Amino acid sequence: MPGNSFGKLFRITTFGESHGGAVGVVIDGVPPRQAIDLEVVQQWLDRRRPGQGKLVSRRDEADRVECLSGLQDGMTLGTPVCLIVRNQDARPGDYESLRDVYRPSHADYTTEAKFGIRAASGGGRASARETIGRVAAAAVASQIVGRLVPGVEVIAWVDSVHQLQANVDPTTVTTKSVDQNEVRCPDAMAAKLMVQAIEAARAEGDSVGGVIGCVVRGLPAGLGDPVFDKLEADLAKALMSLPATKGFEVGSGFGGTRMKGSEHNDEFVSGGFDGRGGAGPTASNRSGGIQGGISNGAAVTMRVAFKPVASIGKTQHTVTKDKKPVVLDGVPGRHDPCVLPRAVPMVESMVWLVLIDHYLLNIALQSAPAGV
Amino acid sequence: MPGNSFGKLFRITTFGESHGGAVGVVIDGVPPRQAIDLEVVQQWLDRRRPGQGKLVSRRDEADRVECLSGLQDGMTLGTPVCLIVRNQDARPGDYESLRDVYRPSHADYTTEAKFGIRAASGGGRASARETIGRVAAAAVASQIVGRLVPGVEVIAWVDSVHQLQANVDPTTVTTKSVDQNEVRCPDAMAAKLMVQAIEAARAEGDSVGGVIGCVVRGLPAGLGDPVFDKLEADLAKALMSLPATKGFEVGSGFGGTRMKGSEHNDEFVSGGFDGRGGAGPTASNRSGGIQGGISNGAAVTMRVAFKPVASIGKTQHTVTKDKKPVVLDGVPGRHDPCVLPRAVPMVESMVWLVLIDHYLLNIALQSAPAGV
Amino acid sequence: MPGNSFGKLFRITTFGESHGGAVGVVIDGVPPRQAIDLEVVQQWLDRRRPGQGKLVSRRDEADRVECLSGLQDGMTLGTPVCLIVRNQDARPGDYESLRDVYRPSHADYTTEAKFGIRAASGGGRASARETIGRVAAAAVASQIVGRLVPGVEVIAWVDSVHQLQANVDPTTVTTKSVDQNEVRCPDAMAAKLMVQAIEAARAEGDSVGGVIGCVVRGLPAGLGDPVFDKLEADLAKALMSLPATKGFEVGSGFGGTRMKGSEHNDEFVSGGFDGRGGAGPTASNRSGGIQGGISNGAAVTMRVAFKPVASIGKTQHTVTKDKKPVVLDGVPGRHDPCVLPRAVPMVESMVWLVLIDHYLLNIALQSAPAGV
Amino acid sequence: MPGNSFGKLFRITTFGESHGGAVGVVIDGVPPRQAIDLEVVQQWLDRRRPGQGKLVSRRDEADRVECLSGLQDGMTLGTPVCLIVRNQDARPGDYESLRDVYRPSHADYTTEAKFGIRAASGGGRASARETIGRVAAAAVASQIVGRLVPGVEVIAWVDSVHQLQANVDPTTVTTKSVDQNEVRCPDAMAAKLMVQAIEAARAEGDSVGGVIGCVVRGLPAGLGDPVFDKLEADLAKALMSLPATKGFEVGSGFGGTRMKGSEHNDEFVSGGFDGRGGAGPTASNRSGGIQGGISNGAAVTMRVAFKPVASIGKTQHTVTKDKKPVVLDGVPGRHDPCVLPRAVPMVESMVWLVLIDHYLLNIALQSAPAGV
Repeated sequence: MPGNSFGKLFRITTFGESHGGAVGVVIDGVPPRQAIDLEVVQQWLDRRRPGQGKLVSRRDEADRVECLSGLQDGMTLGTPVCLIVRNQDARPGDYESLRDVYRPSHADYTTEAKFGIRAASGGGRASARETIGRVAAAAVASQIVGRLVPGVEVIAWVDSVHQLQANVDPTTVTTKSVDQNEVRCPDAMAAKLMVQAIEAARAEGDSVGGVIGCVVRGLPAGLGDPVFDKLEADLAKALMSLPATKGFEVGSGFGGTRMKGSEHNDEFVSGGFDGRGGAGPTASNRSGGIQGGISNGAAVTMRVAFKPVASIGKTQHTVTKDKKPVVLDGVPGRHDPCVLPRAVPMVESMVWLVLIDHYLLNIALQSAPAGV
Repeated sequence: MPGNSFGKLFRITTFGESHGGAVGVVIDGVPPRQAIDLEVVQQWLDRRRPGQGKLVSRRDEADRVECLSGLQDGMTLGTPVCLIVRNQDARPGDYESLRDVYRPSHADYTTEAKFGIRAASGGGRASARETIGRVAAAAVASQIVGRLVPGVEVIAWVDSVHQLQANVDPTTVTTKSVDQNEVRCPDAMAAKLMVQAIEAARAEGDSVGGVIGCVVRGLPAGLGDPVFDKLEADLAKALMSLPATKGFEVGSGFGGTRMKGSEHNDEFVSGGFDGRGGAGPTASNRSGGIQGGISNGAAVTMRVAFKPVASIGKTQHTVTKDKKPVVLDGVPGRHDPCVLPRAVPMVESMVWLVLIDHYLLNIALQSAPAGV
Repeated sequence: MPGNSFGKLFRITTFGESHGGAVGVVIDGVPPRQAIDLEVVQQWLDRRRPGQGKLVSRRDEADRVECLSGLQDGMTLGTPVCLIVRNQDARPGDYESLRDVYRPSHADYTTEAKFGIRAASGGGRASARETIGRVAAAAVASQIVGRLVPGVEVIAWVDSVHQLQANVDPTTVTTKSVDQNEVRCPDAMAAKLMVQAIEAARAEGDSVGGVIGCVVRGLPAGLGDPVFDKLEADLAKALMSLPATKGFEVGSGFGGTRMKGSEHNDEFVSGGFDGRGGAGPTASNRSGGIQGGISNGAAVTMRVAFKPVASIGKTQHTVTKDKKPVVLDGVPGRHDPCVLPRAVPMVESMVWLVLIDHYLLNIALQSAPAGV
Repeated sequence: MPGNSFGKLFRITTFGESHGGAVGVVIDGVPPRQAIDLEVVQQWLDRRRPGQGKLVSRRDEADRVECLSGLQDGMTLGTPVCLIVRNQDARPGDYESLRDVYRPSHADYTTEAKFGIRAASGGGRASARETIGRVAAAAVASQIVGRLVPGVEVIAWVDSVHQLQANVDPTTVTTKSVDQNEVRCPDAMAAKLMVQAIEAARAEGDSVGGVIGCVVRGLPAGLGDPVFDKLEADLAKALMSLPATKGFEVGSGFGGTRMKGSEHNDEFVSGGFDGRGGAGPTASNRSGGIQGGISNGAAVTMRVAFKPVASIGKTQHTVTKDKKPVVLDGVPGRHDPCVLPRAVPMVESMVWLVLIDHYLLNIALQSAPAGV
């Protein structure tokens, strides 16, 4: 019930401060007898890890995952899987000067407003390091979903950075094309400009935001619930729970509000009712693969807005803990000028966590044979 | 755990098909000894009710609320409050011709894909009538929050219809200004054009969508959680669980992704730290009143995208249950050409339900006196 | 989260005060396309109803069940099923003299201590009428489980009344033998004495308690969880949540603590591993069909202690709301001298609710095909 | 939702196999700014640890607790507290001969029936080592409750071993008197005989069970819920979720069923309504401090039955995994001939976890000021 768990049947609980002993996750509800490759988990963590290129945070964490429970010779026991990553490269000294200052657009003040205390160094639970547990859990989930529903793909990419909008076709984009450049934008031309924009922001001591696009392909029809747990509602919560997010769209999104019903409706066509992949059962897909909260077999398409990183090198005005004005001459610590490339695996992870949960729930509730 | 409940401590469960015996809600977790005015509940239901003007659905339901439990002489007993509304004006005959047809962009097909069965008439749980329970519960919640945190205001309005964008200041908008016209847009000039657009859509047998804006003013700092249950994540889920929604934004939203960090950051200023209302503790409010998932005392600002209504009078191509092509010459039944005016109380309701839950949760977890 | 719900996947929420408008239940998580016979639900309610014989409360309620949602032509839609029973025979006048008095061993004082308010008449939620919702939900559950796991039987009986202990064999007892007399004790000789004891208690203005025995036969191996949600733990909670219960035993119970390990252990034998019914896989069954929290295919055996009814006709000393001593010359209202016969269907109902929930949960978590 | 979590607001999730990398717990919902002494946590773990005397298991685990998150300089941050204990003294070799054998009255068979797999060595999650996480969490909980409700005491003791029944007064028993002998029975005379009985069982390669008594003193009136989450129901679930339990009683328990209402009722008296401690508001306490599911201010009294340990040295008949009969000439591994002394801190721990959860829940729901 408190706020560090996600999911109902495949239920994860993350823990750990960014500068504490470790960050990690406990996954409860893991189906038994599932082969889980910890190397895959490590690869997912490596993909979200800072210090990978010149575009992202220079903090260098090996982020080696350790499994404390739930696996035996690479097979799940059906018991809780606990995965941890030790914090190694914490430099609390960087934060000493910030102990009594509220960084603009950070969680310093609100954390104190809620808890009356905050981690003396680092972002505590508000740090992006918290997402390590989510990504590790999703790496486990994806291996299981891959067996439950062969062929499901979740692919996210950088769709825009600052003013630069890429041109990406969600029906054909591949992970390979996403990872072909360090900005993780499959539109090579846009990617080059994005790199320049990010480098320019770094040079200015500034930061940029952008939009992550994401598609789920090969999802069967029937996932999601008609009322509160609509598939898009659970995706919205999952993705808006990532740090720095400001908006979420599914299918036609805000743009769809400027269409008429006759333009927006997706007409059904005879093919595509196998409930899996391809173009789905509709001639168009402004619904984004979800109708009435339930997947219809077409691609689920989403966009997530990430604000520009709050930690910048420029001079800013703010106040201290006792509400005295103070000039902050650049936020210390190592920070990304742009969080977008690292947000790609985070977005994919949250989507996997939503999918596995709805999939398991569906199985339970569809299990009873119909009849009299 | 199944999908018809919302909230943790103030937990509502809605029930009822649109053409069944009744729709309603059970609220568990209602604090005791709270005066609840059922007339206020009725007024909220009246505000969301169809048949109020020429712009909305012509279905005429009295929608009289009946309280089955939990109240005694207008006071809560601390036991579950069950509120129901009988369905009176159901005209199942309207739907007979649709029994075997999948209406485009409706939930007909996906409901069958998930459940293998659907209500023979009406939209079942996918109908907007399902929101009656939400609005009734929120009318109770708002009376309690009003006592817990005097001065909190939740105000939603029609911010755009089709291509028409209103100009509304969230820091000053009032419910009175929202309700001054039947389109519920406080920008009188825009409202006139919106009415024309909606009338034109009706005349064409077409429909239009739009955006609802919403603001929470007077909210104390400290509501929300740093990880999964961020205030914006819970608001996103709440609002994206309303029928026909396609997008959600908080604060700067998607537009904020086109700013630099130095432009987007909200600098703290000395005043406004009383944790309540006014401009909040920041000189600007691109954060939308939430930082790191937790309210900061500034106004919480949101936008929700609603697609154009799927039921239109125009001819559409679709398929039957056995996947045979069929031409649908206008969707029978009485439908809104534009759902936006009625969505205003629905949006406000979901926001109230999020607020009361986080408020009660906060009290529980902040209760222990600090100390050694 | 609040306390009026039970179950995770087959989740029921009961509502209603004993002297309010209605009592009822909402069931969320009902599998779709299940034929549900409302007449069976009515029969279960009739079986728990007061006013059936001379042994039980003389309150005469028709207790006609009405279904407000979730069923269409006798088939579940997979949506919430709301069942209500109107309160008809409430005689609040009986309770007027009790408004300011704390009846001994009733919930009057504790209800006020917790809520600061209580229903002015009747027992509110503490009344046995609250169990109507449980029994109605269980009557639905049993019809579904009967299809999921054909052959599962849940049979409860009156095992003792006051000092009278019946002799009942859980491996052969039948519902027919239970219902053959009005005290619901399948040991005909003991039943006669029990009737006399209950009549004698009534004549004295006194009351008696007793023990309900219960067996589940035909349950497959594999239900229950190894840690907190052990099958016996969930049964204990379910049964100890019934009014007036003071104890719970599974298998050998308290008597088993007086045996040695060599006497208590159940040796496995070659037969009985089909996971269903018969004697199960062990030569003896002191485990009561559960080992390590998980069913083993043998009969699950339980006993539940019910205290003597608190409402008696004799003179008692107590205090008023303002803590002044007062003499209570018999508790007004119509009350059972012995709750045991009516507790039989209540016990069976709670067991069914535990079984369906664990069964659905099992399906979800065992669904993933094993493999690499 | 899955079965490794307990509690709603103070929510613990345990993890870890007995012979895996570590066992531990994540606690979510820890109130912030609470001083927590990890030495106290260690002392609680030491008290439940095997290898302390000649009566209990000879497995020697240092069981040193490590805190991975949630604490800073001994103060809670309001974030999840993760506590782990590395497994050091695992001797998987002891279990090699058991890999394909179902030990009688163990969870070997049922674990396979549910999961289709089980830990190759040790008891996995069915091991008593799983309770380390519970005890560690309770040691944190007790420090917080001690500040919320000063003066609450939870004291458990060995009430009977095999046929030996101690004579203990729950209103005066102290932890000191419990810990004065290694069998943890405050009746010194009975304790001596119990030690002899346990030693005799060990000498025979046999085992004995018994009953743990437990009292909560100083608990305010008003904890617990009137329907499913009755205080006794939650205590029953908590205690019946401990390994080897077969029964639970509150107040008069099974013995109370042999009394008449006039003998069993607890008359209210004028004193004792301060809602705290002492004798409570009733002249007698057959209710065991709970009426209608809610505490009344009197001592809460309970008894929990533990079966004799299943691992014995004697020859037993059983079957292998492929259902072939086999003779088991003593169960290898190091085991207690009597689990009772170590069960004392386990029982106390589960009671603390129930209390803190109900206490926090109460605060949330009682928070709204009454009024119009």
